[in-house]
Formats: sequence, structure tokens, C-alpha cells
Amino acid sequence: MSEEDIADLRRWHRQAVARSLEAGYDLVYVYAGHGLTTLQHFLSRRYNDRDDAYGGSLENRARLLREILEDTLDEVGGRAAVACRICVDELVGDRGLEREETEAVLALVGELPDVWDFMVGEWDFDSITSRFADEGAQEEYVRGLKQLTSKPVIGVGRFTSPDTMVRMVRDGVLDFIGAARPSIADPFLPKKIEEGRFAEIRECIGCNICVTCDSTITPVRCTQNPSMGEEWRRGWHPERIPPSTTDANVLVVGGGPAGLEAAQMLGKRGYAVVLAEQSEALGGRVVREARLPGLAAWIRVVDYRKGQIERLPNVEVALGSMVDAEEILSFNFGHVALATGSRWRTDGVGRWHTHPLDLRAVDVLTPDDVLAGARPAGEQVVLYDDDHYYLGGVLAELLATEGFAVTLVTPEARVSEWTVHTMEQHRIQRRLLEHGVEVQTSRALVGASEGVARTACVYTEREEELACDALLLVTARLPEDALAVELERALEGRAGPSLRLIGDAWSPGTIAAAVWDGRRYAEELDELPSSGDEPPFLREVVALAPLAARPR
Amino acid sequence: MSEEDIADLRRWHRQAVARSLEAGYDLVYVYAGHGLTTLQHFLSRRYNDRDDAYGGSLENRARLLREILEDTLDEVGGRAAVACRICVDELVGDRGLEREETEAVLALVGELPDVWDFMVGEWDFDSITSRFADEGAQEEYVRGLKQLTSKPVIGVGRFTSPDTMVRMVRDGVLDFIGAARPSIADPFLPKKIEEGRFAEIRECIGCNICVTCDSTITPVRCTQNPSMGEEWRRGWHPERIPPSTTDANVLVVGGGPAGLEAAQMLGKRGYAVVLAEQSEALGGRVVREARLPGLAAWIRVVDYRKGQIERLPNVEVALGSMVDAEEILSFNFGHVALATGSRWRTDGVGRWHTHPLDLRAVDVLTPDDVLAGARPAGEQVVLYDDDHYYLGGVLAELLATEGFAVTLVTPEARVSEWTVHTMEQHRIQRRLLEHGVEVQTSRALVGASEGVARTACVYTEREEELACDALLLVTARLPEDALAVELERALEGRAGPSLRLIGDAWSPGTIAAAVWDGRRYAEELDELPSSGDEPPFLREVVALAPLAARPR
Repeated sequence: MSEEDIADLRRWHRQAVARSLEAGYDLVYVYAGHGLTTLQHFLSRRYNDRDDAYGGSLENRARLLREILEDTLDEVGGRAAVACRICVDELVGDRGLEREETEAVLALVGELPDVWDFMVGEWDFDSITSRFADEGAQEEYVRGLKQLTSKPVIGVGRFTSPDTMVRMVRDGVLDFIGAARPSIADPFLPKKIEEGRFAEIRECIGCNICVTCDSTITPVRCTQNPSMGEEWRRGWHPERIPPSTTDANVLVVGGGPAGLEAAQMLGKRGYAVVLAEQSEALGGRVVREARLPGLAAWIRVVDYRKGQIERLPNVEVALGSMVDAEEILSFNFGHVALATGSRWRTDGVGRWHTHPLDLRAVDVLTPDDVLAGARPAGEQVVLYDDDHYYLGGVLAELLATEGFAVTLVTPEARVSEWTVHTMEQHRIQRRLLEHGVEVQTSRALVGASEGVARTACVYTEREEELACDALLLVTARLPEDALAVELERALEGRAGPSLRLIGDAWSPGTIAAAVWDGRRYAEELDELPSSGDEPPFLREVVALAPLAARPR
Repeated sequence: MSEEDIADLRRWHRQAVARSLEAGYDLVYVYAGHGLTTLQHFLSRRYNDRDDAYGGSLENRARLLREILEDTLDEVGGRAAVACRICVDELVGDRGLEREETEAVLALVGELPDVWDFMVGEWDFDSITSRFADEGAQEEYVRGLKQLTSKPVIGVGRFTSPDTMVRMVRDGVLDFIGAARPSIADPFLPKKIEEGRFAEIRECIGCNICVTCDSTITPVRCTQNPSMGEEWRRGWHPERIPPSTTDANVLVVGGGPAGLEAAQMLGKRGYAVVLAEQSEALGGRVVREARLPGLAAWIRVVDYRKGQIERLPNVEVALGSMVDAEEILSFNFGHVALATGSRWRTDGVGRWHTHPLDLRAVDVLTPDDVLAGARPAGEQVVLYDDDHYYLGGVLAELLATEGFAVTLVTPEARVSEWTVHTMEQHRIQRRLLEHGVEVQTSRALVGASEGVARTACVYTEREEELACDALLLVTARLPEDALAVELERALEGRAGPSLRLIGDAWSPGTIAAAVWDGRRYAEELDELPSSGDEPPFLREVVALAPLAARPR
């Protein structure tokens, strides 16, 4: 950047500040964090190798930050507060910004902004998942910085528990609690704390499904808060739901994430609801998966909904309740929602293979088996991951820590490739390699014989053999829809309840998708025609009104 | 899909047809191609394992296609033509749609639509790059199908030459020529053929930069046609450009893609232009890269612009012309554009490393060296690709075919990872593996000593050594801006021409980006202030006007 470039940047930043004030903002950020901005790049020796007044000493590297802060304060002229967000430690070791330098930055410009906002690393650390870090993971980096400025300080680190938040403030670590993901999971988090409604907090599970919308260019979703992103489009509210306009009663079969959400929200609408769960515990796959390494926080999906349902006298929970079609029909429900879940395939069909493989010669397990407590018969386990989200990687970690010799084979080029979108991929592959898992990427399973799995390179189709006492197949799931088929048959030519499959039983997907589908069922029951002939949501319309005059 | 699902689909398709007519379309497509649609999935045994009237025999598998065709014809009622696009061969071998079945489909429903549109494989074959297939690559799959229906037929296959198009029609292969990418490169292609202006055709080079917008979610670009995607936003026209409003003369230094485009379009605006090129040929990096395996068609970027410039008496081309600052200033140009290109780095800095590696102990080459004819001193070549677009892969292919033992090392998980967006990645990695290139993905170069390159796993940082007689570094480029610096210095405190760096000399990028930047310079010269304070293009504004009523 030449001197003219720097002058341009400063002028453009002033113009942006002026526009922000015009748009009515109360707080204007000067941003030197997340590895994203010119201000951070000037601060860091990693990027700044200038030999002029903006390079070399920390004072020089902080010059642009100081100038932009001064410009911003001048432009704002007291009409808004000015915050500065800064990366405390770039976590790249040699040549990166480190705590010591950040302290020196605060000595230089610590009194300029009205509030400091600290963050650490890039987005993948700033928004690290619960699988890889506990709540408040940035405390160790930030503690003590507050004492270097008289201005209040903000910090983040997926704060989900009011106790931790209060401790941060009482201990003098932070003045303000920053909590983006927890506010996505529960936009009323501050209000519930204020009103002492702690048990009603819908606590973020730290899965980063919300983050995936960024790189998959899809509407934002939240495992805990299915109304996220649907507030305007569908009129869903994080807390409220319009009352039922009928007095129909509803049976929900299956107490996994879809069934729990449906029963809860139907209950809030005032329906008489029976939630029938065949096992002795609510939660379905979430209960089983939350026992896997790093996924303990996911149980909050169940805990929150159980807590809500307990307060609803019109929702009856029947555990240990196996129901068949005739029983269901005998009760005269107005509606039946089947949230019966899904099961993992045993035949190798997934993204790569559309037809079953012949795998009879080896011991074949699925995630369902392992989650139910089964383990491979021998030591050499080939885990074939053609699902690409978290489960293959988690199961490889589990078996490796239990002493199995695990080879993870996947047609993708990275372990758990889809977790690129949750920003976990590099941590997952590192952890597996460090646990001694043998990783074979870009290879598909093509067959098996006694003690041997055959794989092929996805580029050349060249085959190789692998020692294999047991195959663990993480490929794709099938809906558990036998009860639905049975019910449809029983209902032929006979009046009866409306039927609907929801969650994994309708379409196996993420836990977030199952919760969302449970909510959709509850929101739309008796309200929307199910023909699908009209889109059940609002759409943004792109208008071609020019914002600026075109040249010539 | 249940019978109700099929009824829904048919009804929704009818509704879509009705909306298309309401919107004024003249041609309505029934789509069974590109691996994308339910109609193709029903046709193909790869996906269809139904045991009802829609599965099993081809007649059954084609039932939904027949029904939707009949629905569409009925709904259209003669108010539009009905086309059917169909995948002739899924190219997946066993269980995929193949030519024989497509012939049988034509026997069943060949007379229903008004026109047939044939395609082959999925999008990556349908829009295969010139690196991997010649013009008209689908002819062998499509030839003879026309004879099975009385209706006219359309086909595709990157038809860029009028001779090939005419031959397709004369030989009875096709009635209509489908050409999406050639029409992106030159929207006036049909008009130019009609008027016999063959030499003026801006022929598609088959690089698939246009395709990359799809998965990178960016505005569409074309290497040959920089106005693509800028017609509305910036008011650029594929053929026309407004005349200059001044009588200034312009010097363009450098005859690569940016300089050629700038000189051409400045010439069309009426400026007196001198294009000074230091070598004896126009084209810059395009001339050198077009000699690499598979890239011959890229030379059209140069040929088209040379042809255009030859017709412009106000553009003077000076070959073998090395100019220095004082010479330039002595000629009193009103404007000087420096299109001096870029050079590849020799120090290992790229996406992974931000600071130079110590590589002095080995023979280091860059793409510039290899493109200039230099070759590694020994047999064992380590090619370190931290650029991730095509060049690393192409150079590995070149050296492997010349007999070098090439190991390609890259921190990405795939060879030429960015070519996922041009749909070439799997072909590139396959070709390299088949040529015996040793591929080491997810590893970064970290150092070198006599005869050895050291690499580290990007996940664990575990190091390994590789035999290495020579390192070929494909990492990043630096602008060739020495002349610009010299000119700026000479101009200090002295009146003189406006100066601007364009293309790779401003910001090393794709050939498409360099051509675009040359066009931008020509479009904006003397027209737009260069302050950057106002966006030089129109923006779409998202309005929140509902298209549909919200439930409740």
C-alpha cells in the first residue's frame, strides 16, 4: 500500500462511519480482528514487512490503527460509541501477534475507543466447537487485559452459562459478555438471566451448524433454536407459537429430537399431546451420540425440551411404549406424527455407491451397533466413511482410544470433509492422526473377503487390500418407516387421523434438521394446507433499483 | 416417492409450466438431464429400484417422463414449444443410462416433444474444458439419434467453429447447435456467422472460468469476454464502447492479456494508442502457457485481440520495445498504462507460508524458468504447488511426460484443488497419477538441504524427507512494477501523464482477471474519477416485498 492507498483507506473508512451514523447505528466498530482486516495485517509481523513509518516497531505497526481510531472518533463526534475489536493472539507462534504485543498496543491506544472487544485466533478458534474446547476458552488469553485500560472490555468464548458469565465480570476479566452463538440458540438469553428464568435458557450446544450457512450459502440454522432464520420468512418466534385453532389431540411416536420438539411446541399451542417413546428414556439418537468423545454438550437438545415438556400438563409422556397401527387407531387421535428415526445402512450404499456391495465375508458393524455398545470382533477395524460429517471421525476416535487399530477410508480428500463448514475439519484430522488412526483418503470401499477389505482410488480405480477383522460402515441412513407403512395400510378405505413422518423418519439428516422438522409440523398443523402448491414462506424479491448512478 | 408424491410432482410441474407461460416464455423444457432431475433418476437403473409401474422395464422407468411430457403439452396447449432435454449416456457404466436405452426411450416418446435436446454425462462432461476434450466431444454419443425421431434435435459440445457447426447440420447429426460457453465468449456469435464476419468471432477457449462463478458464488466472468456479467452493472457491451471524449494519446506498456485488451478497447474508443511490447511477439504469458499440454486453445485470447488491433489504424504496435521512464516521459503521452505482468516467487511464500523459506541448498526453478525452456538439473523433481489452480498440475504433467520423476507436494487435500470449480480436478489428478506423478497432498514444503526437500503434514506438523534434485515452486507471483516505481519517482514534482498499473502488474491473477482489468482501464479512462469514493457500478437492491402471503 502506497501513501495514497493509505489515505484512500482512511477516507473510505470515514465515509463508512458517516453512512453508519446515517443508518442510525449507536455503536461503530474499528476492526482489527479475525485475521480479516488491513488493521490487523498492519499490526502483525506475519504480514507487515514495511520499512516506512507503518512498519518495523510496534508503534509503527499500530500507526494505522491509531489513525483510523482517531478518524472514527472525529467523524462520530460523540453521536455514537466507538468500539475496537482486536485479535489478542493470532495463535501462529513466530511472527504472529501475541499477548505481549497486544499489551503494548493497549499502552499506545488503550484510552482511544469507548470500549475494547477482544478475540483470539481466527474464526475457527473464536467460534471453536464444544467438541474441541470448553466454555470460556478465551479466558486465559484475555485475563488481565482489562487492567491495562480504563475503558470497559468485551470478550467472547461461547459463554452459555450465567454462572460463568457472572464469574467473568466478578473476577474482573470482562465487563461485557459477548455471546453470538448462545444468542442464536436463545435470543432471549439476557432477558431470561435478568428475570432469573435460568431453567428456561436454551443453551448453545457448540455444534456450529449456524456457522455452516456461511460457506454453504444456505439459510442459517440452529440445532437448539429452529426458529433461527425463519422469524421473517415463516413468522416463527423463538419463544412463542400461536394457539391451536382446533381441539384435536395428537400422538407423537418417537422421543428423539424431532418428536421432542413437535411435542413441546404442539403442547405450547394447547393441543392434547401424547409422546410415545419405545425406550425408557427421551432423546433418541442425541442421547447415544452425546456419550461419544467431545459431544457431551449435545445432550442439551434433550434436556431443554424435557424441561419444557414437564411444565406442560397437556403433554403426556409414555416411556417404554411400543405402539402398533391397530393400537394407534384405537385411540382416535386427530393427528399422528411419526418421529421414528432412522437406521444406518449395512450395504455400503452412500454418496459413492448407489447399489449394495457384497460384504458378507467380513464382520460388518454400523454406528447403530457401536452406539448400542457392540464392538468389533478383532483388532483391525476398517471404518468406511461415505457420510462425511462428524460421526465417522468421532467413531474412529472412540475405537482408537479403546485400542483398536483403525483405518479410516473415505472417498473424500479429507477426513470428515463436511466439517470444513463447521470449522472443525483440521482439528478432527489432526486428532485422529495423533491417536494413530491410519487415514486413507480419496479411496472407496469396493468389496471384502475373509480378513480383507478392498478399496479403490477414486481417481484411477486402482485397487488395494487392507487387513480387516471388521468393517464399520458410516455411509447413509434409511428412514424407520415401517410403522408408517403399517398405518397407511390399516387406514386404507377407513377414516382416521392425519399421518405425517417427521425428522429422520421422513428424511435422515442433521439433528438440527430433525428439530426444525418437528417445529415445522407443530407450526403448520391445522394451519397450512399440505398440498405444497403455495410456498409456505415469504421470499425476498430482488429489485433493480440503482443505488448509484452508472457511469455515462 | 409414493403415488401421492408422484401426483404432487406432476401437479407442481403443471403449475410451473403455467407460470412460465404467464412470464412470456416461448419454449418450455421438460428436463431429464445433467443428473439433476427426478425424471432422469426414474429413467436410470442407477437410482430407480422401484417395483411398481414406475420401475423395472424401460417402459416403466420412462412412465413419469411420458406423463410429464403429456402434462406439459396439455398445459401449454400450443402456446409455446415443448423441448425435452435428456441425458443420452450417464457415463457410469453398469446400471447407468446408456445409448441403447436412450434409443428405446425415443421409440417410446420420441414424437411427443416439439424438439429434443441431447446431452451426455453430468455437467463436468457436458461442459468439459479444452484441456480434456476437443470441440464437439459429444458427437460420438449423439450421432444417429436424430434419425429416431421426426422432431428436430439440439446438441452441445462447446461448438466454437462455424465449420464444425455446419458439418453437424449437413451430416444430419443435429438440427440446432447448442453453445452456451461459446455464447458467453461471444453473444454475437450467431449474428457474426449470419453476416459472414468469421474473423470477428471471439472464440471460447474452453477454460471454464465462467463455470467457477457457480460454486464460488461470484459474478460470472469470461476470459474472452470481459463484459460478461458487467452489461447491466457497468454498462459494458460485448462489442461496442463509447468514443473517447478527449484527444489524449495513450501508451500501453506490455502486450500480454491486459495490455492487449486495453490497447484494443482504447483504440475502439478512438484514442491514439501505442502498445509497446519488449519481446518480439504479442501475448505475454498466454503465448507461453498455450504451449503447455492441453492449453493450445488459450492462444485465442491473443489471436482475437491481435486481429482486432490490426484493423485499428490508431493503434501502433511496437515490438522489441524496451522503454524506460525518461523515454516514456519524453513522448508526452496523456496516459500511461503499465501492463508489465508478474513473476513467480522463488522463496516459497504462497498461501501456506507468509515468510521466505531457506531453500538455497537445492536447485530452485519457477514456472517462469520452465516456460522459458529451462529444465531441472537432475531427475528427481519436487513440484511444490501452493497456488492450487491449473499451473502446478500442468507443469507436473509436462515434466512427467518428459521423463522426470515428479513428486507433487501441496498443502491442499487435492491436486490443483481450485480446479474443483472448473470441474477439472478429478481429471487432473487422474492424469497425473496415470503419468506416474507421485502425489503428496496435505503437506507443506518446510525446507531443503543438499538433495533433500523437507515437508510437513499440515495437520500434525510431522516432517518427512524427499529425494530432490530440483524444486519447482508454484506458489505465488509478484507484480513486475519496477517501471512503475521508476516512473513515479521521475514524475515527482513534475507534470506528466496519468499512470496506472493494470492486469498482473497491478494484482497477479487469472488471465480472465487481467483481460477484465484491461477492459476496465479502457472503459473508465477520462470517464470515471479514480478516487474510489463512489462505487462504479449499479447494485441490486433486495426489497422485502412478499411474493406470497405468510401463514396466519
